[in-house]
Amino acid sequence: MIGYAFMGRAHSHAWRTAPRFFGLPLAPEMSVLVGRTPDATAEAARTLGWAEVETDWRAVLERDDVDLVDICTPGDTHAEMAVAALAAGKHVLVEKPMANTLEEATTMTVAAREAAGRGVRSMVGFSYRRVPAVALARQLVAEGRIGEVRQVRAQYLQDWLADAEAPLSWRLDKDRAGSGALGDIGAHIVDLAHFITGQPLAGVSAMLDTFVTERPVAQSFSGLQGTAGTERGPVTVDDAAIWFGRLAGGAPAVFEATRFAWGRKNAMRIEVSGSAGAVAFDFEDMNVLHLYDAADDARTAGFRRIDVTEPDHPYTAAWWPPGHGLGYEHAFTHQVVDLLEAIAAERQPEPSFDDALAVQRVLDAVERSSAASSVYTETGN
Amino acid sequence: MIGYAFMGRAHSHAWRTAPRFFGLPLAPEMSVLVGRTPDATAEAARTLGWAEVETDWRAVLERDDVDLVDICTPGDTHAEMAVAALAAGKHVLVEKPMANTLEEATTMTVAAREAAGRGVRSMVGFSYRRVPAVALARQLVAEGRIGEVRQVRAQYLQDWLADAEAPLSWRLDKDRAGSGALGDIGAHIVDLAHFITGQPLAGVSAMLDTFVTERPVAQSFSGLQGTAGTERGPVTVDDAAIWFGRLAGGAPAVFEATRFAWGRKNAMRIEVSGSAGAVAFDFEDMNVLHLYDAADDARTAGFRRIDVTEPDHPYTAAWWPPGHGLGYEHAFTHQVVDLLEAIAAERQPEPSFDDALAVQRVLDAVERSSAASSVYTETGN
Amino acid sequence: MIGYAFMGRAHSHAWRTAPRFFGLPLAPEMSVLVGRTPDATAEAARTLGWAEVETDWRAVLERDDVDLVDICTPGDTHAEMAVAALAAGKHVLVEKPMANTLEEATTMTVAAREAAGRGVRSMVGFSYRRVPAVALARQLVAEGRIGEVRQVRAQYLQDWLADAEAPLSWRLDKDRAGSGALGDIGAHIVDLAHFITGQPLAGVSAMLDTFVTERPVAQSFSGLQGTAGTERGPVTVDDAAIWFGRLAGGAPAVFEATRFAWGRKNAMRIEVSGSAGAVAFDFEDMNVLHLYDAADDARTAGFRRIDVTEPDHPYTAAWWPPGHGLGYEHAFTHQVVDLLEAIAAERQPEPSFDDALAVQRVLDAVERSSAASSVYTETGN
Amino acid sequence: MIGYAFMGRAHSHAWRTAPRFFGLPLAPEMSVLVGRTPDATAEAARTLGWAEVETDWRAVLERDDVDLVDICTPGDTHAEMAVAALAAGKHVLVEKPMANTLEEATTMTVAAREAAGRGVRSMVGFSYRRVPAVALARQLVAEGRIGEVRQVRAQYLQDWLADAEAPLSWRLDKDRAGSGALGDIGAHIVDLAHFITGQPLAGVSAMLDTFVTERPVAQSFSGLQGTAGTERGPVTVDDAAIWFGRLAGGAPAVFEATRFAWGRKNAMRIEVSGSAGAVAFDFEDMNVLHLYDAADDARTAGFRRIDVTEPDHPYTAAWWPPGHGLGYEHAFTHQVVDLLEAIAAERQPEPSFDDALAVQRVLDAVERSSAASSVYTETGN
Repeated sequence: MIGYAFMGRAHSHAWRTAPRFFGLPLAPEMSVLVGRTPDATAEAARTLGWAEVETDWRAVLERDDVDLVDICTPGDTHAEMAVAALAAGKHVLVEKPMANTLEEATTMTVAAREAAGRGVRSMVGFSYRRVPAVALARQLVAEGRIGEVRQVRAQYLQDWLADAEAPLSWRLDKDRAGSGALGDIGAHIVDLAHFITGQPLAGVSAMLDTFVTERPVAQSFSGLQGTAGTERGPVTVDDAAIWFGRLAGGAPAVFEATRFAWGRKNAMRIEVSGSAGAVAFDFEDMNVLHLYDAADDARTAGFRRIDVTEPDHPYTAAWWPPGHGLGYEHAFTHQVVDLLEAIAAERQPEPSFDDALAVQRVLDAVERSSAASSVYTETGN
Repeated sequence: MIGYAFMGRAHSHAWRTAPRFFGLPLAPEMSVLVGRTPDATAEAARTLGWAEVETDWRAVLERDDVDLVDICTPGDTHAEMAVAALAAGKHVLVEKPMANTLEEATTMTVAAREAAGRGVRSMVGFSYRRVPAVALARQLVAEGRIGEVRQVRAQYLQDWLADAEAPLSWRLDKDRAGSGALGDIGAHIVDLAHFITGQPLAGVSAMLDTFVTERPVAQSFSGLQGTAGTERGPVTVDDAAIWFGRLAGGAPAVFEATRFAWGRKNAMRIEVSGSAGAVAFDFEDMNVLHLYDAADDARTAGFRRIDVTEPDHPYTAAWWPPGHGLGYEHAFTHQVVDLLEAIAAERQPEPSFDDALAVQRVLDAVERSSAASSVYTETGN
Repeated sequence: MIGYAFMGRAHSHAWRTAPRFFGLPLAPEMSVLVGRTPDATAEAARTLGWAEVETDWRAVLERDDVDLVDICTPGDTHAEMAVAALAAGKHVLVEKPMANTLEEATTMTVAAREAAGRGVRSMVGFSYRRVPAVALARQLVAEGRIGEVRQVRAQYLQDWLADAEAPLSWRLDKDRAGSGALGDIGAHIVDLAHFITGQPLAGVSAMLDTFVTERPVAQSFSGLQGTAGTERGPVTVDDAAIWFGRLAGGAPAVFEATRFAWGRKNAMRIEVSGSAGAVAFDFEDMNVLHLYDAADDARTAGFRRIDVTEPDHPYTAAWWPPGHGLGYEHAFTHQVVDLLEAIAAERQPEPSFDDALAVQRVLDAVERSSAASSVYTETGN
Repeated sequence: MIGYAFMGRAHSHAWRTAPRFFGLPLAPEMSVLVGRTPDATAEAARTLGWAEVETDWRAVLERDDVDLVDICTPGDTHAEMAVAALAAGKHVLVEKPMANTLEEATTMTVAAREAAGRGVRSMVGFSYRRVPAVALARQLVAEGRIGEVRQVRAQYLQDWLADAEAPLSWRLDKDRAGSGALGDIGAHIVDLAHFITGQPLAGVSAMLDTFVTERPVAQSFSGLQGTAGTERGPVTVDDAAIWFGRLAGGAPAVFEATRFAWGRKNAMRIEVSGSAGAVAFDFEDMNVLHLYDAADDARTAGFRRIDVTEPDHPYTAAWWPPGHGLGYEHAFTHQVVDLLEAIAAERQPEPSFDDALAVQRVLDAVERSSAASSVYTETGN
């Protein structure tokens, strides 16, 4: 595994936990953790449970005892690492967004397709696909339970930057992160829309905003929270993004991603309305899926609040009794399960680099649209 | 009052009820109901409590005992009626949307400004401003409780057309209604955004959709529900509208209006995020306002679910004890109260025709934007 | 109508509004308002819309133009008034609780049975039965949708006395009110349990509490809110009541009524679990009924949030389109409709005095149980 | 660790995970798993991550390399094991309910007090105390944020036995489980009431019910779900329990525990109303605490929905960013953290056997009260 910050901790937990709850076809071994600083990396390896450490990620690619590389670094390094790992015959799991530019993403996808021909697998970490309620939503839509997809509305609302004095991090630096709310959280709702409906976005109209253009430089970080210093630096990414568009099948879809929505901590929401019903999800109530079935009789129809913790639901039989809900990191554990099962079965895991490229194309179109003046019609007000 | 369908019933109830619960400066008398069909109008007058009937609305304008004309007809008749009534020195309350075209709306506004110089008042029936929770939201924003307005997200979701066999009505006929979801319900969320933030939308990017282009012709109607016949006719308005834009102060705002969102009956929702907090409202829980105050200590901050039924809240002292919630039609009663108080105080009631013109400009820009191909950036998917 | 405070206002609105929205078999005329103070009564009559006033309620019973007497006074006067009115051949609607003692309630019930033999009707104002979501709950239970009734849990939580400085009113005086939270709001949840399940409570174990034993004497009142003076007086009723028991069919049921639950404004809640499903209601979301149908497939079963505003729902077709919710006073309007329909059809309206007597027996048993020391088993803690 | 069913899995995960996320003063080693069947125990040890297995729990007590014994077996074995382990100088963590009878619980408590004198620690696994929102509730109550405790209402609603064909397990056998819903889930809400208010229940009045007296014998089990065979056997425990009582300080409290509430999966709910506010929790939304602060101004007071995932909240700084919620098993991980910190600091961990004995006394009093006929007052209905 390369990187050991927020995502590295989540991935380590997943590698450690998956074999304890799921019957896996392959037994993962947590062999090498890669980081640039020897001491910090060694300490992280101890805490997170990796057997060895390495400061040069290229060295790991030469080891025979490494079968899979898990890339948890900022987006500007993904392309180089992933392409090299695939070339070296290592399966690759890369965090989202897959890359900071469409060009890098395309290069990675070409490499992944080529590697697949050699039996080398690749996957992108859109972990929210593995939340049981989200997986159930996709099942129900795919089975036709809500009929033909007519409308998608999605939001990803956070508030950790709403305080103008929250410090800078690499996530606010365009060179490292590629974009702001758009790539960090907007990418997730694009992927969810693709995943649940089975259709990619074909076009968009978009608007990006940066509300706070200068912030204190951080001195230390823990998760997304940093301690501010006295120096200040520029924010070079978007704080919020709004866009709408059409799915390949023509259905309209509207999206908002922001890290400035006071009181919304991790409100990743998606609602898909079809010709025969609707599904709705909100990560702030992550164990629940809401389903409206228009076939229910008019007197008792209503959104069903499904507690997605029954043994019949995706992933949940491996865990606890009904109502004993799962948390954020379980999706990462499920991601490991799905990845290892695909590798063992010699099939392409999902979401593939192709799937992630479809997301990347949307992010790129959003940025292009936002930059174009023709998007906007004056009201005269 | 001209017209006696859904809106006519709501307005009649308001005229009858306002003096019973509020100390009004003027005592309304429900003198004449105007309708085209003598028998049906007479029956409506009996049911709704109007003293007389008239089939020619122009005749009413000549009567000395009529001080105020309440226009509840479809949008294509508003301009002619309102302009004539104002010219005749009658105060005017006109239902929203104020008109079907920007041209008509402009004519009306000019007439209203001129009439105001003669002490003749005019108001547009954006009744949702009078829901206590909405009025409280505006108060809090105006007082600076959420700081500077940064973002607006608004939805108006209904499902009464989601069934493709729901019959046609004048609301689906462009000639009568002007537009579909956009003017019928989209107008409300534009007005709410203007009202709560105090800023109009300066520009938009938009997309309109019609999902079902042909429907059975209705044989009879009750409220929004009709009985379908065997004949079919075209739907000439939008079924759904999505748009985003910027308020005059620069804050981004995103909107969706649809009558196809299965399971959402009257989900008129608006959330305004500011630099110091946020307010959120959903008409499906109409007696509640959610407030996030970023000044609350970090350990106990959270959206407050305010049951807006305390005596300190707008309009509520006139009604019932706390927790004994109000319903849809109360907003119309409050509208009558506010209108009569403004007339008695010789000041301009709100929302004025100017306020409604600002909404109309947005609706017009949404239609123009939706028709323009340049709005759209292809993703390549 | 006798009395014109909170309940008098609600009843007046109902008499005025019912004929405007419902096709009634009898046309109500609001002829005489009775109150002790001539001036205040006259003013109330003007505001509430009664044609005449009277200070002696007995005088009204002698008038031929009065067919029905609506009793909205405190509970200590109900028995005398109701018995006299029935003897005079007037139909009677009496507010709940029907009486302050079981003895009075029994006398009234005997009188009502006798009057029924003469075609004189009587009803008690348990208005919450007429909330559409509650009426739907009863329908579903009666139709067997949740199977055999197994468990009832009910709460009525308010907070208007939680402030120890909230002033005294007749509702805190045992002589006038009979009891406190028990009779005022506890009576409602007992009646709802009886109504929805179709079974009365056969026995109880109970505990009453008074948290604040002395309060400021009120100087003026508006609704439940008064203005405190400097003098203090004793609270002679319960502030909160808890009891459990069994329905006639054996199912256990648990109840809590309190006016001290900070943050709960009018949370009248009832959930009935059966062998095949459950229904749940909360007045703070009064237009919604939650239904769990155990026959739904395991993967998509969940409480359905039914917006009880569709034309197929009880009472709602007379009002507004779906999602345009009703408020507190609508239940009183429905009460008038049901009462007049029963009188016209020459059948007994519900809830009858017999039905209310069943509630009164529960209240009485709760008081007796609470006073008995044998109820309590020490834990040793 | 002794036992490896549902609780054994939860505990194993906790022992494995705690050192990865928390800086612990002691490093736990998962040395021996004890079970009666050698093969099944060996397989469980492999899956759950225990180094060795043992079939005789007494043998483990003789090992010097074992410092702590974690008892996850049914309640009828707890007393013997715990007393022996403490005598052997091993720290003990025992699952709840601590014992099946008050006598056993008392014996264990005496042993624990004696062992504490020797520095040997003991704790009972009321894990829900370690849900961050619950821990926050206790903090706020202890700090006086809601004033003096006035009322407690608690429910624990599940539905896994509502289906009359759900098979038997040891949890339905009085000899193994001691009681049914009462001891299994009722014990939790008693402990939570004690924990949050800091006061034990002093007395109760209670009613127990068994709705389904005979069920299919299970053939295999996974979590709480079994596969039914054709044979049938008796249910010898309660299906549901209702009780009320008073805390030591006099405040009334009401409780319901049931496994028959269709649609409620794991609704462990507690609300504490005080003189200055209230806190409310529902495990079905486990990352949220609701707080009503009566000091908030009347216009904006309302229950605050606190997403208990901020770094300032109990336990949460060790996990993920705000809004990235925790799941059921996290409470077990926190339990390990608290236990090891107490052992290292040479102080008594909580809840102690004394704390659990207080719960046991309540369970015992509930059973005695339920058996006494004097609890019940007939209504005459």
